[in-house]
Amino acid sequence: MSIRFWILSLALLPFFPVAALGAASGQPAVDPAVLGRIRDVAMQDVWAYQHLAELTDEIGPRLSGSTGLEAAIVRIAAAMKEVGATVALQPTKVPHWERGVETADVVEFAGRSTGLNQHLHLAALGDSGATPANGLTARVLVVHSFEELSARAKDAQGKIVVFNMPFDQRLADNGYAGEAYGQAGEERFVGPSAASKLGAVATLVRSVGDAQYRLPHTGATEWDAGQTPMPAAALAAEDAQLLDRLAAAGPVSVHLTLTPRHLPDAESANVVAEWVGREHPEDVVVVGGHLDSWDLGTGAIDDGAGVMAAAGVIETLARLGLHPRRTIRFVAFTNEENGGRGGQAYFAAASKQPGKTVAAIECDLGAGRALGVQAAVNSNSMEKLKAVTQALSPIGATVLVRREGVVGSDIRPLQLSGVPGFAPLLDARHYFDYHHTAADTLDKVDPENLRSEVATLAVLAYYLAEMPEALARVTVKDEE
Amino acid sequence: MSIRFWILSLALLPFFPVAALGAASGQPAVDPAVLGRIRDVAMQDVWAYQHLAELTDEIGPRLSGSTGLEAAIVRIAAAMKEVGATVALQPTKVPHWERGVETADVVEFAGRSTGLNQHLHLAALGDSGATPANGLTARVLVVHSFEELSARAKDAQGKIVVFNMPFDQRLADNGYAGEAYGQAGEERFVGPSAASKLGAVATLVRSVGDAQYRLPHTGATEWDAGQTPMPAAALAAEDAQLLDRLAAAGPVSVHLTLTPRHLPDAESANVVAEWVGREHPEDVVVVGGHLDSWDLGTGAIDDGAGVMAAAGVIETLARLGLHPRRTIRFVAFTNEENGGRGGQAYFAAASKQPGKTVAAIECDLGAGRALGVQAAVNSNSMEKLKAVTQALSPIGATVLVRREGVVGSDIRPLQLSGVPGFAPLLDARHYFDYHHTAADTLDKVDPENLRSEVATLAVLAYYLAEMPEALARVTVKDEE
Repeated sequence: MSIRFWILSLALLPFFPVAALGAASGQPAVDPAVLGRIRDVAMQDVWAYQHLAELTDEIGPRLSGSTGLEAAIVRIAAAMKEVGATVALQPTKVPHWERGVETADVVEFAGRSTGLNQHLHLAALGDSGATPANGLTARVLVVHSFEELSARAKDAQGKIVVFNMPFDQRLADNGYAGEAYGQAGEERFVGPSAASKLGAVATLVRSVGDAQYRLPHTGATEWDAGQTPMPAAALAAEDAQLLDRLAAAGPVSVHLTLTPRHLPDAESANVVAEWVGREHPEDVVVVGGHLDSWDLGTGAIDDGAGVMAAAGVIETLARLGLHPRRTIRFVAFTNEENGGRGGQAYFAAASKQPGKTVAAIECDLGAGRALGVQAAVNSNSMEKLKAVTQALSPIGATVLVRREGVVGSDIRPLQLSGVPGFAPLLDARHYFDYHHTAADTLDKVDPENLRSEVATLAVLAYYLAEMPEALARVTVKDEE
Repeated sequence: MSIRFWILSLALLPFFPVAALGAASGQPAVDPAVLGRIRDVAMQDVWAYQHLAELTDEIGPRLSGSTGLEAAIVRIAAAMKEVGATVALQPTKVPHWERGVETADVVEFAGRSTGLNQHLHLAALGDSGATPANGLTARVLVVHSFEELSARAKDAQGKIVVFNMPFDQRLADNGYAGEAYGQAGEERFVGPSAASKLGAVATLVRSVGDAQYRLPHTGATEWDAGQTPMPAAALAAEDAQLLDRLAAAGPVSVHLTLTPRHLPDAESANVVAEWVGREHPEDVVVVGGHLDSWDLGTGAIDDGAGVMAAAGVIETLARLGLHPRRTIRFVAFTNEENGGRGGQAYFAAASKQPGKTVAAIECDLGAGRALGVQAAVNSNSMEKLKAVTQALSPIGATVLVRREGVVGSDIRPLQLSGVPGFAPLLDARHYFDYHHTAADTLDKVDPENLRSEVATLAVLAYYLAEMPEALARVTVKDEE
């Protein structure tokens, strides 16, 4: 209560008309005092966490096609209107896949029926095919690399192929969580498709991510065009290791039942909320996250926190009554997790609008403390961005790092078209402990960390929208 | 291979006939060089881990009445015979309770149907009653203490009572894991019985233990004599917190289905394996752990590691060809988790045998590194035990701590009858992260830590069986 009152008081203070300050005057292009005020107000933010709590507690999981995602779209649109933004829905069809029964038991070990209960913990991968309703039984082939799969290609016929590739937590601990995810993630992204081509009957992948709590980590897998999806699931790390140990000692059979369903594409939408620019309203800085989530948890860190931190940019500027030169456009993307249709629909619509997208920011790497800014820009643009991390130095978000690739999957089409792309740099050491699991819940979000994300995004978005001259366009590599 | 060869070579070395050394001679009561040799051989042990791996991988969960427990009894008896011990089964009936369907969903929030998917993660408590087959729906009453339950006694009528008492991980981190378990465990031990008396229709308790991975921790709950068991389950910590937050904002209803079954008592047995004493074979040092486990995981740390470390005492002495003055009796207790019938049956049988039990050691606090020895003995016996921790100092198990209560639930009847009781002191900081959960699996056991347990138990058991005079009997408090 007192914090809110104090913030409201702040918002009523007069301040300098920053538009009057420009690079040409010899003063900084954007007034550091204004950036500081944005930072400080954002660091008192209660709005983003409150809305995240409502999203995750009262709505819950938000997979494409679900009633949860529909409810979330309605709610975030209403919240942005209440803040004072101009809100529109941007309809798009999205894939509709639903999890069904998922069980697996070791039924044969070393050539004999176990007669025992050794249940495996697993979760179907998004877009997995189904087994027969009463399941299938097959011997397992455990591999530890794609090279091993190739070498044992003939053995895969008729088998359940198990990929047991561990996640390298050391990389994550050292600030390379994305790299660790990309490395171990190969088995999930393309393992099932590869195994299917060799005649396997199903694929089980070790969960991507660390933390050993018998927790399966779901996620998308990729099929070739025209390929029929095979039954594919993520095993808890413990279960992948168990099958590996058992298979080393003799033949192992698993009875596997997966009954997910592919349904017709569903209606969905991006929520687009504008904070109109005072000089060039047609030119836009995009700041967004994705509203959809996987179905196992409540998507608090992936990406409830990110989308609410991005929404908090407009809420912060509204509180301060601050309109930068250009428009800041918040986008709550739909269907990031299993299709990317939201990002595609946004790009298609933006391409038809007058004006240009001068920058795009995506926040989708959890809810850790903000450490700075990642910028996919030309190297000679980096100097101009130092004012952002300087303004953030009192909260420790001082790192400014240049990237040469895509920094967010929803803004990928924008980045590939030449738009400078940004993402906050977050503490992601433990992101992949919870990512895509049932344990992605509100309690994983520290409100103070979320405030640091709001502050980082707000200072960055305001700066990019306020700079007298927009940053140069850039050519980036098509990899994350 | 080379390790095993080295151990075999060691076993062939001649050594001093330690029986010739005694306190009266002015030399130590038990030759420190022999204790050192036991320690060193145990620290090379591969037998205990190998048998633990077979128990957990090839057999799996071992709840009383299950085929898993039956298979485990056969296997450990065979293993002890192979080592050279004299093996007998000690039959006893055990309770037979089986988990069924267990689901729970939030179906009403703030007075309106949610229409959304907010599934709770839970596991029935052992001895829980069942709901109707199609479940029951009721409003929840969340309480944070037994005082609050008493104050809101009238509100409990017809409700699902939810106990949300957090586990104090700081206590566990500081070496008081047992105290943290006892404190938070009250809600599980007696909460359902208390709520049932107030007219509640079911009870959900927050899982006892830390680690936030949406993991329910099962365990036993206690009913008064003649009380009909009500439906009772442990919620994942996340779900207890969710219900607490939702209930703070308005009425919440949950649809709960639990269909466990109570079956007639099953046949089971303790496995008793003797390593016969050379001077007083009728006098016995008991060293044991429990062979049964909860049904969610494979009972690697509770108590596969403990029972195999205890079995490793005889295996180590057999490898060295060492028989102390008195008999060392390994006991693989049955039914520790949900009845304690194994400990009772052992005590009843021992009471009818000639000779006396001079000490009892139980190993049932996980698979952490051994830090020393806990002794429930008279204070003037403590001096005599220093030789044990001195012999263990090269492996860091140097702490010798006196306890005034019961140090193991299976040896409780022995301790209450006056027998000095012992337990290894283990690093249990993370024991309750996994205890009674699906994540209690082999990968949680570091083979080196298990060796430190074997070494601690072997040195302690040998010393107690070899001392010229047995320790004085002791009166302990009936609390753990």
